[in-house]
Amino acid sequence: MAKELIFGHQNPDTDAIVAAKAYAYFQSQLGYDVEAVALGEPNMETNFVLNYFNEPSPRIIKTAGSEVDTVMLVDHNEPQQSVADIKDVTVTHVIDHHRISGFETTIPLYYRAEPVGCTSTILTNMFDENKIEIPAQLAGLMLSAIISDTLLLKSPTTTDHDRIAVKTLAEIADVDYETYGIQMLKAGTNLDAKTDAELVAADAKSFEMAGKNIRIDQINTVDLNDVLSRESGLKAAMADEAAKEGYDLFLVLATNILDSNSELFVYGEPKDIVEKAFNTTLTDDKANLPGVVSRKKQVVPPLQNAFEG
Amino acid sequence: MAKELIFGHQNPDTDAIVAAKAYAYFQSQLGYDVEAVALGEPNMETNFVLNYFNEPSPRIIKTAGSEVDTVMLVDHNEPQQSVADIKDVTVTHVIDHHRISGFETTIPLYYRAEPVGCTSTILTNMFDENKIEIPAQLAGLMLSAIISDTLLLKSPTTTDHDRIAVKTLAEIADVDYETYGIQMLKAGTNLDAKTDAELVAADAKSFEMAGKNIRIDQINTVDLNDVLSRESGLKAAMADEAAKEGYDLFLVLATNILDSNSELFVYGEPKDIVEKAFNTTLTDDKANLPGVVSRKKQVVPPLQNAFEG
Repeated sequence: MAKELIFGHQNPDTDAIVAAKAYAYFQSQLGYDVEAVALGEPNMETNFVLNYFNEPSPRIIKTAGSEVDTVMLVDHNEPQQSVADIKDVTVTHVIDHHRISGFETTIPLYYRAEPVGCTSTILTNMFDENKIEIPAQLAGLMLSAIISDTLLLKSPTTTDHDRIAVKTLAEIADVDYETYGIQMLKAGTNLDAKTDAELVAADAKSFEMAGKNIRIDQINTVDLNDVLSRESGLKAAMADEAAKEGYDLFLVLATNILDSNSELFVYGEPKDIVEKAFNTTLTDDKANLPGVVSRKKQVVPPLQNAFEG
Repeated sequence: MAKELIFGHQNPDTDAIVAAKAYAYFQSQLGYDVEAVALGEPNMETNFVLNYFNEPSPRIIKTAGSEVDTVMLVDHNEPQQSVADIKDVTVTHVIDHHRISGFETTIPLYYRAEPVGCTSTILTNMFDENKIEIPAQLAGLMLSAIISDTLLLKSPTTTDHDRIAVKTLAEIADVDYETYGIQMLKAGTNLDAKTDAELVAADAKSFEMAGKNIRIDQINTVDLNDVLSRESGLKAAMADEAAKEGYDLFLVLATNILDSNSELFVYGEPKDIVEKAFNTTLTDDKANLPGVVSRKKQVVPPLQNAFEG
């Protein structure tokens, strides 16, 4: 049997890299000659996971056709998310949890998709169905992928299958998944690696409302205390940036991705419009905004309305 | 949970009808509200199967959107093979053994395809994986579908998975699958229901070669004796038809679909060209052509060459 490559989507997240490794192990047990590769560098979260479980980074490829005739896809199926020369190779297997779009084959293939939170959840079931034991190290990697995709089983995409898989894998890996999960997601956001100036600039966007120059930044975290503990530094960075760039109003929204809760930091004026927009009262130029997670849907429109109203 | 319809492709064969019934049983065991329907009348073979196992014909639908919002597909995925208003409903599940083409969804779904001989083979494995028992009557139906799609495990599409499923299902159904299989495939060809004149006309096509008017018919069977025993009647029908329609040369190829073997009946002239084409000698205006199964690939080209050579 000729060698095949297995890979996840471009800009790989933890599931894209881990599911390729898990499926490669699975297929090798069934006698396939396969290698798990990746279409890009692992992100901070994935690097934490690979280090934690002492697993090497996958080899990164730009094209597949130069090495093999056939490939297996995990965690994606749409050609524009796949390897650049996907049209030049034959896809023999797909394991995925997304919609199917633009995917075409000329011959029958193995395709398994399920509407669950993570590809590694499907793979956990496949190991079970085929009575293949999951090694402890691999279980740790797959557990990490499910925690990543489901934000520790809290995202709305989470299903009972994901919950069961997490419990199964945590037991095999001998990991307290809640403690480990927070630690892992924290490594993914990695606020410690950024200066205050970087934090208030990293994801900031500018808006014009009623002739005012408005700046809105968002910081994702798994623990709001990691942001609140840097309050004075962040406020100074906001003031510096506003003076330098001429922002009338600077908002920084710190969002806890695990419990869908945000803390809003406000610099500049008019502060009364901000209070009106979010129906709140600022204390020390801050306000807690429960349930607010989306700048696009939950911050910009009410602020715009408050300016216009 | 809202009711969903499950169906196979248009012009249903035994697998299209049986896989819908099997998947409906499977899904009902998992708590889904489903009904197996069909996109057309069962063929002769399927009617034999349904009668044999005392199973009612499925209800036939023309559209799905008038009854349900969501559907499950078996034994197909390409929209042009599906229900007329497939674009108006949401596909939530697919079980199939064909290539994927033109299939698109907007949301994640359950999709399971395997490159095996029959959808009912995949379903047999799914019952096993989910530890759902297959009732004896349903096992008989599923066994019939695999026999149909794989021509009693002899077609080149047959895999080890199909062979194992046939043994498993035959045991549950308590059926001698070889004896039953021949009987079932025979019912599908059903030569007894046709007159000699009908047999030599049913699948006949006309060709012009070197100015001659050539007619070539093909009769599929599971037992060449069923054709050979009607030799004199068939020859008379060929002569009648040739006289009436002005054919110079009339060939009838009787093909045993189980062992890829054909008997050629020849009426008219030039017979020496026929002998040259197939490198054989006619005896009583007949010749055995081992390995010949395709009129398009194995009869027309050599005859054309012999006329031209």
